[in-house]
Order: sequence, then structure tokens, then C-alpha cells
Amino acid sequence: MQQYEQLRARMAELGHIHSAIAVLGWDQQCYMPAGGAEERAEQFSTLGKIAHEMFVSDETRRLLDGAEAEVAGLAGDTDEALTVRVVRRDFDKATKLPTELVIEMAKTTTLAHEIWVKARGESDFAQFAPSLEKILDLNRRAAEHLGYEDRMYDALLDQYEPGMKTREVERVFDELRPGLVQLVQEIAERPPIDDSVLRRDFDEDRQLRFGETVIKKMGFDFARGRQDRAVHPFCTSFGKDDVRITTRFDKNWLPSALMGTIHETGHALYEQGLDPGDDNTPLSGAASLGVHESQSRLWENTIGRSRTFWNVFFPDLQKAFPESLSDVDVDTFYRAINKVQPSLIRVEADEVTYNLHIMLRFEMEKALLDGSLSVADAPEAWNQKMREYLGVTPPDDARGILQDVHWSSGSFGYFPTYSLGTLLSAQLYDKALADVPGIADDLARGEYGTLLDWLRTHIHRPGRRYLPAELVQRACGEPAQSRSYLRYLRAKFGELYGLS
Amino acid sequence: MQQYEQLRARMAELGHIHSAIAVLGWDQQCYMPAGGAEERAEQFSTLGKIAHEMFVSDETRRLLDGAEAEVAGLAGDTDEALTVRVVRRDFDKATKLPTELVIEMAKTTTLAHEIWVKARGESDFAQFAPSLEKILDLNRRAAEHLGYEDRMYDALLDQYEPGMKTREVERVFDELRPGLVQLVQEIAERPPIDDSVLRRDFDEDRQLRFGETVIKKMGFDFARGRQDRAVHPFCTSFGKDDVRITTRFDKNWLPSALMGTIHETGHALYEQGLDPGDDNTPLSGAASLGVHESQSRLWENTIGRSRTFWNVFFPDLQKAFPESLSDVDVDTFYRAINKVQPSLIRVEADEVTYNLHIMLRFEMEKALLDGSLSVADAPEAWNQKMREYLGVTPPDDARGILQDVHWSSGSFGYFPTYSLGTLLSAQLYDKALADVPGIADDLARGEYGTLLDWLRTHIHRPGRRYLPAELVQRACGEPAQSRSYLRYLRAKFGELYGLS
Repeated sequence: MQQYEQLRARMAELGHIHSAIAVLGWDQQCYMPAGGAEERAEQFSTLGKIAHEMFVSDETRRLLDGAEAEVAGLAGDTDEALTVRVVRRDFDKATKLPTELVIEMAKTTTLAHEIWVKARGESDFAQFAPSLEKILDLNRRAAEHLGYEDRMYDALLDQYEPGMKTREVERVFDELRPGLVQLVQEIAERPPIDDSVLRRDFDEDRQLRFGETVIKKMGFDFARGRQDRAVHPFCTSFGKDDVRITTRFDKNWLPSALMGTIHETGHALYEQGLDPGDDNTPLSGAASLGVHESQSRLWENTIGRSRTFWNVFFPDLQKAFPESLSDVDVDTFYRAINKVQPSLIRVEADEVTYNLHIMLRFEMEKALLDGSLSVADAPEAWNQKMREYLGVTPPDDARGILQDVHWSSGSFGYFPTYSLGTLLSAQLYDKALADVPGIADDLARGEYGTLLDWLRTHIHRPGRRYLPAELVQRACGEPAQSRSYLRYLRAKFGELYGLS
Repeated sequence: MQQYEQLRARMAELGHIHSAIAVLGWDQQCYMPAGGAEERAEQFSTLGKIAHEMFVSDETRRLLDGAEAEVAGLAGDTDEALTVRVVRRDFDKATKLPTELVIEMAKTTTLAHEIWVKARGESDFAQFAPSLEKILDLNRRAAEHLGYEDRMYDALLDQYEPGMKTREVERVFDELRPGLVQLVQEIAERPPIDDSVLRRDFDEDRQLRFGETVIKKMGFDFARGRQDRAVHPFCTSFGKDDVRITTRFDKNWLPSALMGTIHETGHALYEQGLDPGDDNTPLSGAASLGVHESQSRLWENTIGRSRTFWNVFFPDLQKAFPESLSDVDVDTFYRAINKVQPSLIRVEADEVTYNLHIMLRFEMEKALLDGSLSVADAPEAWNQKMREYLGVTPPDDARGILQDVHWSSGSFGYFPTYSLGTLLSAQLYDKALADVPGIADDLARGEYGTLLDWLRTHIHRPGRRYLPAELVQRACGEPAQSRSYLRYLRAKFGELYGLS
């Protein structure tokens, strides 16, 4: 196993470089003075180049080939075999794309991002159209290099959700769509919920402290992580013992920081929960973006927007903000943070409408990619789908097709992972409660350890051993499905909106 | 000039890696959670190894040889020739030490540091003696590899103060010592200054804000830097547009943060003042540790402990801390922050006694290195010199020979740079005022731009073009000397203590 060991050592070094890059990124978003931007870009570029060259080198190929030969006699589910499988998958992806294409993509998207910022600012899709055309073409070329059996979109999807097929996403989304559209329509006919209590005054420092007490209870380990302020909320990790989240505060919109902190903590619990035995090996890490999102959504929505949760925490929240919440009862608060309202902007969408925003993007990405939809016709197609799914019409491109950063940064195939994760959150939650009936009582008492233990065992500690589909099958005994999520939504929002 | 350009590009990449390492170091001291330490050590080790291998590689040697040939026809003071000279100096230093010796030094000092921490905690030099013996031996071997013409100590000194010779340090220190010992004795016969006002209550956040206003006035650019809290005050830089200082606060000892912030700002002004045209080239950076220290000492002591400075800032300080300072006048405050008191600990020493602590270490390092002093006899030799120079006797090793971290980390030849910098600060200040008589009036009005401009021109912007001795000669028209400093001390403390 000599080459296997050397391969592991090489991958550990690569992991350290990527952690260093992540520290630079964290600092850039949290503390870097404006003047540091130019030099920071050079630091990223140098470390990125070193890591890339080291990974795609002949030496890695030699060790990988050798390690494959060494593990050939082992069972496929040994850590050694799984490790080599993971590295092979990453290596093939990294080496299949010609360097010229990677460089052209980087150049194009750097430029396209600037253009998109301006186009969105002026709400003028025509400015961005040529960039989108170019990015689509580069993605088509990338897909051809990466390879696919059935649909071109598979190759792109696979970058974010390894092994996932377009057909599989369509199956899940097709199951979900009618029930979702139906639910949105029923809710639209009911009187709207009043969420004005969330727009009162909430001192930012007190929001921070309250959030800290909540996420500590959830299991966030501050000895192995921290929370900072940043313009964009995110979770990053430099190894499982240094996991950091960021939060954005809005004095007059409580959910921004509160629910954002819980969401990022869901991501952080995954990273902090990786198997210590996998440290610095290719097995350490998240199975996919979708699986990562299942953890953030589970904690943010299934737990953090539940009546049970606020029965526990609302008295503390009132104590933290007596001047704004002493005249509010827990039911009013619970209703407010669960208000459903079809809206134009994905990142502001509620639990019910969110996945319709994603389906729209998934369908448009496929059509743009295979040419059945032209870039010129895209804005109108977007608006048409918004009317069909959500009953709203974007008044301009800024609040329509130009709202997301993803396409300008070259990412096609990324959006579906948000919904796959959301659906999975409900499926996992159902299975956890079926496996460990005591979890429900614990949640009612504000104890999250039993739920976290189940997630640790079935999702966190397996790390990258299994493809997402394999992981779901092992955890739930069935493939990914949307029934759990639809049932969850109908039960929760049926009660909230008095639906039959 | 093809190889010259390639050499520059390679050195720029190395600079980016070193900046990334510096970011990791800053984060470790300012924000990293305890759990992150283990993985951070791996990140340092990986990036350090990559940078070292890249620098000492055959490719660097090839480009350096080629660049030397390319610049051979140019005048020695062209940037191209100076650049190649700087790289050659660094390259020879890095390649002269055999890798085994570097690894053995790293292992020995990692262990020695732990042992020193314990030995100091228990005030027991005997525990540390074998480590010191080993470190001395490794330093002797390193000196032989690095090479020297006259004295073995030259080779070690040169690592921190390029081109500086032991004989030269001795010359300067021999000039200084008698006057200093005399001054300390004269002051000891006068009534002590009462500095109790500095031990009153000073809210830490208000200390931070006051410090910010002071260093902004001095010229610290917050768009290209920042200030954070840390256990150890330091200045670090990731390029001249991202320069950071840290401060340690003590609620009941005002000078800790206040003078510490000004000191680190002195370092930071040097880094922020490097020539923009030198960005990412080997010419960008400080000439030496001693020259760096000249900037921190100049701002901390010559400016920050002057009556002129406090005539400007004391009213603001009083406003910041009315409850502690409203009954204090500027003269009492000025006297308090300039109290002279022979003491046991170097880092707590005042301006007058500080350099005697350094001379003691310089003499002991030389004697330990050449074997004229044995490790076993070192504690008593230390205590003997303390009595001779400062008239105090350490009651134990913790407050004697074990107080500094330097030896345990393998650094011999480092201490003298503190004094060389201090002496230079007075020499530079005298020359600046002689060159630009308006500076004195500006300082009296709290305007620091003219002084900073002089330092920018003569010290900051030259960067690493010249050896420290060359830089001093160019800036001052004479070699380094101790007259300016001794004259400064006699004038200031003669007046403060009413000496004849």
C-alpha cells in the first residue's frame, strides 16, 4: 500500500492548501481592508495555481494508478477502496477539462460578472445577453469534455451533485410541482398573515447574542468554530475543528440574522460532525452541495421555523427584546416567520414558494443549454414561468432573470441542488423520527442532541464515502423522494392557513 | 532581460505565498478558535515547505544566474542590479544551510520552546540548560555553513541585520554604555517619579477609540490596514495595502495599549510607505529588523513620549477618560509616562535602561557562542551583569535569564537589532529636523506629515535596495552612531530628573 499512502499524503497537503485559500476567503469577507483586494486576488491566484498543478500532475496520476492497483483486491466498501474512488472521481473531473477551456471560462466569467453587476443595476438584460451566450457555449464545450451518457445537462449537474442525473431531478420535481402550485393557489385565497412584528427594532448586538445561545443549544461548538459579521452569510471550514459562519444583521428585519444564523449553523454542524478518523483524507468532506443544503434547511426550516422550537425559545427572545416583543404572543410570532407570499426574488422566498423558483431555473437552464430556448427569448420565458408557477410578473429584468449571480459566474447545474437539499431535509427528518421516536420529545424540551446524533451517524460521519444517491439510500432505505416534503408543507401550512 | 523578468515573476509568486502564510498567522493570533491549532500547524508546514522548495530550487538558481549575467553590464545602483543583488543574498542564505540542519533546528526549537515554557514557569534554568546547549551547537554549525570572515557571531547577526558586523555593534555599544550607566546612576539618586495616574481605570473600548484617533493623525491609513486585539502586540503585512497591527489592553495600565499601539503603528507606517512601484518585487520590504525598529521606536518614544505630543493630545485623552484624568495636568502625565526605574524585565524597561538589557544579552550571546561562558555559569553571569549595569539582582531565573523567548526559538543575533533600531531612531530624527526645520513647528501643532514624508523618502521608499549601513549613510551622511541617542536621553531625562 505504499503508493496509496503516498497518495493520501499528497491529498492531505492539497487539503492544507485549500484550507489556507479558505482562510484567505474568510478574511476577505470579514476583515480585509479595501486596499487589500488587489494583492489578495494575487494570493488566491498563486495558491490556486499551485494546488491545481499539484493535483493534475503526472505524479498524482502515477500514485493514483498505483493505488488503484493496490486496492484492486479489497472489497469496494473498505475505506481504502472508497478513498481511491473519491480521488479518481475528482482527478478525472479536474483533468478532463483542457487548461485552455478552464482559463477561458475564468476570463469570461470575471468579465461577465462585472457586466452582470452593471446590467442588473440598470435592469437591462440586453447588456448581459452576449456574456450569457458565451458562457452557455463554454458550458456546452465543458459538458462534451466531461462526458455524459444521456443528457448534456448531466455533465454539469454532476459537478455539484456527483452521480445525479437530469432524468432523476425531473422525476422528483415532476412529483412535486403540481402539489406545490396547488398549495400556493390555495394559500393565495386565504387572508394574508401579518408579519409586521418582525419589522420592529431589534438591536444588532442583542440579535448576535441571542443567536449564539440558540446555536450553542443546537450543538455548534465554539471551541471549534466562530461567528462573525459579513455582508454575505456563509459557512466555511479549515478542517473540522475550525468551522466558521457569518451573519448579516438587519435592525428592522429580525429573520435576516436569526434564520440566517440557524441556516449556516446547519452547514457548520455537518462540517464539525465529520469523522475525526477521516481528518486530512479524501473521505473528509460533504457528499455534495445538495446534501449540505439538506442540513442547513433542516435546521433552518424544519426545526427553526417550527412551533415546537419557538415554544422553547420565544420566552428568551422576548426577554432579549422586551420593547419590541412583550406585546406579542408565540403564536403570532410563529405565524409571522412562516408567512407565505409569492414574490419575485428567490433568496427572499418562503418555504412553500422557494422550490418553484428553483424549478423555473432548472427548466430554463436545460432549454438554454440544448438551444430550445434562445438567449433573446429568455427574459420573457422567465416572466411567463413566474406567472404560471407563482402568479406574479417581474416588472423588470433586475427583479427577473438578472437577479441571481450564478449564471454570470459560469455555474449551470448548481440551482437544482438547493431543492434537492430541501426535499432531502424532510425525508431525513421523517426517517430520524421513525428510527428514534424519542427525538420528538427531546425537540419539545429544546434538546437537539438525539437528532444531531442521528444526522452525525447517517450523514455527517460518512463524509464523502458514498455518492449522494447511495448515501440517501443507506440513510433512508429508499431513493430521494418529494412525498415527505409535500406532506410536511401540507400539514404545516394547511394548519397555518386553515386549508381543508 | 528574459530571465530577469522570469525571476521577478517567480519572486512575486513566492511573495504571495508568504503573504498567505502571514494571513494565517494573523488569524491564528487574532481570531482562530482553540480547536483550529492542529490543522493550522499543518497549513503552515505545507505552505512553508512549498515556498522553501520553490525558492531553493534549481529553477531559481538557473534564473538567478541568468539574471546576473543579464544585469552585469548595468550600473550597480539600477533597480535591476539591486533586485538581483537582493535575491542573490536571500538565495545564498537559504541554500547555504543544509536541509538536515534546518530540520534539526526546527525540531529542536519546537521541543525547546515547550521546555522553556515549563522551565520559566518553575523558574528552573537547569531544565532548559540542555536545550540551550543543543541550540548553541546548532547555531555554531549554522554559522560555519553561512560563513564569516572575522567573528562567528557575524554570521548570525547577518540573518537579521544584513551586512552588520559584530565589531561594528561593539563600537556603537562601547560608545553608548558608559554614558548610559552614568545616567542610570544619576537618576537613581533623584526622587522617583510618581506614575500612579497611569494605573487608574481606563475603559478598554475607549482606549481603542482614542488610540485610533492618535494613529490616524500619525498617518496610519485604515483603508489599507486595520487594528485588532491580540494577546501579543505585533504588526504584520500582506502587501503594502494591507498592513495590520494588534494591541493588548490593560484596563489598569494605560501605557500598555497606548504606547504599544503607537509602537506598532511605527512599524505599520514603514510597511504602508513602501514604494508602490516596488509592489511584488524583491525590492519591496524593510531593509532589516533594526531599521524596522528605528521606525517603531521613533514614533513610540521620540514622538509619543514627548512633551510636544502630549501638549497636543492630553486634552483629548482627558476628555476620553474624565473620571480618571480630570484632576491630572499634562506635566504630571508627561512625567509619569517617562518614569525611569531600573527593573528586571526587558519588555517593561523604560527608554534609559532598555539598551542596557540588550547589551547584556549581546555580550552573553557572544560569550556563550565562543565558549568563553559555559551554559552552566550563564545564570550567574546574567545576574552579575544586571547588578553591574542596572544595580538590580534577579531573585530567580524566571525574572532573569529565562525571561525571553528568543533563545528557545533558536534566535541568536536578534537582540542587538532592538538597540541598533533605537539608536538609529534618534539619529534619523536629528537628521530629519536638520533637513526640514519646519518639522518642529508641525509637531508642535500635531501635524506629522512633514516628518512622515522625510521618513518615506529616506527610509520607507528605498525598501530593500540598500544594506542597512548603506541606507543609514545615504539618509544621514554618516555611519550609525550613538551620540544622537545619548544626547537625546541626557536632554530629556536631565530636565525630567533635574540633573546638572
